[in-house]
Amino acid sequence: MKIALIGLGAIGASFAMGLKAAGYTELYGVDIDPSTIDIAEKEHIIKKGHTDAQLLLPDMDVVILSLYPNQIAPFVEKYSACLKEGVILTDVTGVKTTIIEQVTAILPATADFVFAHPMRGSEKKGIVGADHKRFAGANALITPIPSNSEDHLNLIEKLYRDIGFEMITRVSPSAHDDQIAYVSQLMHALSVAVVNSEQASEETLTFAGNSFKELTRIADINGDLWSELFLNNRSALLHSIDAFEDELNKLKQTLVENDEETLKSLFKQARTQRTDWY
Amino acid sequence: MKIALIGLGAIGASFAMGLKAAGYTELYGVDIDPSTIDIAEKEHIIKKGHTDAQLLLPDMDVVILSLYPNQIAPFVEKYSACLKEGVILTDVTGVKTTIIEQVTAILPATADFVFAHPMRGSEKKGIVGADHKRFAGANALITPIPSNSEDHLNLIEKLYRDIGFEMITRVSPSAHDDQIAYVSQLMHALSVAVVNSEQASEETLTFAGNSFKELTRIADINGDLWSELFLNNRSALLHSIDAFEDELNKLKQTLVENDEETLKSLFKQARTQRTDWY
Repeated sequence: MKIALIGLGAIGASFAMGLKAAGYTELYGVDIDPSTIDIAEKEHIIKKGHTDAQLLLPDMDVVILSLYPNQIAPFVEKYSACLKEGVILTDVTGVKTTIIEQVTAILPATADFVFAHPMRGSEKKGIVGADHKRFAGANALITPIPSNSEDHLNLIEKLYRDIGFEMITRVSPSAHDDQIAYVSQLMHALSVAVVNSEQASEETLTFAGNSFKELTRIADINGDLWSELFLNNRSALLHSIDAFEDELNKLKQTLVENDEETLKSLFKQARTQRTDWY
Repeated sequence: MKIALIGLGAIGASFAMGLKAAGYTELYGVDIDPSTIDIAEKEHIIKKGHTDAQLLLPDMDVVILSLYPNQIAPFVEKYSACLKEGVILTDVTGVKTTIIEQVTAILPATADFVFAHPMRGSEKKGIVGADHKRFAGANALITPIPSNSEDHLNLIEKLYRDIGFEMITRVSPSAHDDQIAYVSQLMHALSVAVVNSEQASEETLTFAGNSFKELTRIADINGDLWSELFLNNRSALLHSIDAFEDELNKLKQTLVENDEETLKSLFKQARTQRTDWY
């Protein structure tokens, strides 16, 4: 089985290194940056690499697209004529419904695309930030579509387990997007809004403790990637913000009305839910 | 110099243990719970303790009130006749303006009250959660009032340094409350609102990663304490929420309008500020 990694950044190269560590040998890579290909070949992360996907794709059985959300469908469209018959494609993006709509509209009938979301982001960039243990113990989500064959879903899930993923859950694309809007995208929106507040100043750190440091960590955000994630999931994220604002407004109202009893009940609800979770 | 700790919870007993480790020997304690006094005496955290403050206060040169915000002024009022002439009182609460108003209205002229905020909270409760190294490397804020003598401010700051505090900053009570509303109380409000969202469910953790875990940590909140902190700082916290909402609304608007350029500029602003800070 020949596997191609399209994009050898921190995520794509970590997939390659993880697969190699798991015993897979037929690993190939494509990247727009020739020096990335050089590193990947010299460090034997891949067997062979190219900057031009056309030179590799006709032989590949599995193609892992480690690209930004908006690059997925254009890549499939551009190279659909080069894809091997029976190829299995998969992606690593954190948004699903819109990407699936775009891809299924142009996917050749001889290819199957298993949409997946490995849930371990990277603060590091590029192949130098790759690590064969990056995915050890991580969770992943697979969002099957009707045209997926069970064998292909199983194969992608096996690759994930082989490189260390622990919990792999199948979920519908819309449920994925609704939940990710809440647990991930909303967190980034809140963190960015906190840091962009007019109250932010050079003096802030004189007053800040651990909670501020933790909550603002993800405001050091890759805007190119996250603008694509946000905008491809606009309606779900707007819904999550609305649901959050409903609760923030309840808290505000207790402050306006000096309503200790309701405030305590909101705190109690939060403590109970948080301790249930962790 | 005889020092009394009023309240031997995780904070008060940590003060006592820290002072003892720093060489202070004349340490006394008051707690409403007799078993806490027993532990404090048996473990030599204090020299002598009582459940009745009246029996100790007349001899005390420094009185550290490790009480909830709403207990500070009532304690001073109740025991003002027992306070030694020239006594220095200090508190550990995270809100200042309202407490200072309450206390200065009833403080005897022969007592000086140095209002302080040691910025290392505790998830642990009670004397069993105390630790002589709790404050190592922590920051503290001192909010002087006009009646404070410079000697007394220096004395409290020396006690803080002696038990490990690293950066001790003097700031006006209103600036303290404005800043704490932003860097601490707002974080707790956001975390609680996230956890209380109607989107919270048993399935949440299937989708959640590090950012969700970090951001919701402080939703496991002591409601008795934090309702006092919020309500004693209502107007400053409402202002911080408003300033936050202004920024969240900017993000929302980019989603509504599918405005990638503005969204990216908001992300860039956040990344620049966050990397400036940390």
